[in-house]
Amino acid sequence: MNNKLHWKILSSEYLHQHVYFTARRDRCEKQDGTIIENYFVVELPPSACAVALTASNEVVLIKQYRHPIEQVIYEIPGGFIDAGEDIAEGIQRELLEETGYRFSEVLHLGRVAANPGILNNYTELFLLKGGQSIASQQLDTNEEIEIELVSLPTLTAMLLEGKIVQSLHASCIFYALIKLGVLQAKPDNFGEK
Amino acid sequence: MNNKLHWKILSSEYLHQHVYFTARRDRCEKQDGTIIENYFVVELPPSACAVALTASNEVVLIKQYRHPIEQVIYEIPGGFIDAGEDIAEGIQRELLEETGYRFSEVLHLGRVAANPGILNNYTELFLLKGGQSIASQQLDTNEEIEIELVSLPTLTAMLLEGKIVQSLHASCIFYALIKLGVLQAKPDNFGEK
Repeated sequence: MNNKLHWKILSSEYLHQHVYFTARRDRCEKQDGTIIENYFVVELPPSACAVALTASNEVVLIKQYRHPIEQVIYEIPGGFIDAGEDIAEGIQRELLEETGYRFSEVLHLGRVAANPGILNNYTELFLLKGGQSIASQQLDTNEEIEIELVSLPTLTAMLLEGKIVQSLHASCIFYALIKLGVLQAKPDNFGEK
Repeated sequence: MNNKLHWKILSSEYLHQHVYFTARRDRCEKQDGTIIENYFVVELPPSACAVALTASNEVVLIKQYRHPIEQVIYEIPGGFIDAGEDIAEGIQRELLEETGYRFSEVLHLGRVAANPGILNNYTELFLLKGGQSIASQQLDTNEEIEIELVSLPTLTAMLLEGKIVQSLHASCIFYALIKLGVLQAKPDNFGEK
């Protein structure tokens, strides 16, 4: 939509191409000819996260230290999708590595972008069901992840109390709770205060 | 929680301190003595966004080109909070600049972090009510923002159809719709499939 708002990239310069950090500076031109001298983009691979239910409908949460905000937070599992990897296979692989669980049902809920003002990637949102613990965690270097199983009412309460601080994960949980019927749209309440 | 997961920063080096892009590289130590040689953090100021309702309960949406994903997307209004600025005043200021609307009621819904794996900032989520158009837009350089008023049912449909791709904004809209009673938790459905 609105093609007239699109910019043309005149030139790109990579500032960093480290395995954990790729950033570039673009010089762009708007449709009216205005030049944008410096637009910084941090490149990340596509990622995925999932509300992951065990066979007995418990939710697999993780606790993880997030250095940029210097907090240990509750998250849902997920990670980056490998180049060329199918996203449904990617989320299963990530969950197996991070939690040791395999799931019988994989439902794609949608996709969001964490912060499209600076990051270029999308995150695919999933609901996984029928999880069985079949292996131990296989974590990447520096990953230190504690697993915690909670009930769906507990997850819902955590979300509504603002305890899921990672926005991608809050979005995923909202979509999953709607899919599960735990959250329902009430059109007759539209616009009431 | 879980203090043992916290890291200590041994040293920090700023890679960029451009007005639009601040990035640093930290060397960290885990509690078990493991050294993390390179952790990259992109620093952003705190930000805020709002589901903004006019006096006749229409929602003020914006359309904006987001260069990192090269898409024009529907968003809710918002922006960065100035240093030392009260967040409730900041969101009113941002909305006035971006949309020309002033609001009679400011409700804080919570806060989320867009991507705490790389970004260090939080975004404050608001529901604003009673908006009156009192001025024209006052946009920053390079901001090109089109305003569109939609009904709450339309906003809800857009959200549930995955048309709000910015995760911070999807989260804010979910919390606002719960606050407004448009989305309701149904505990008796917990765990049903």
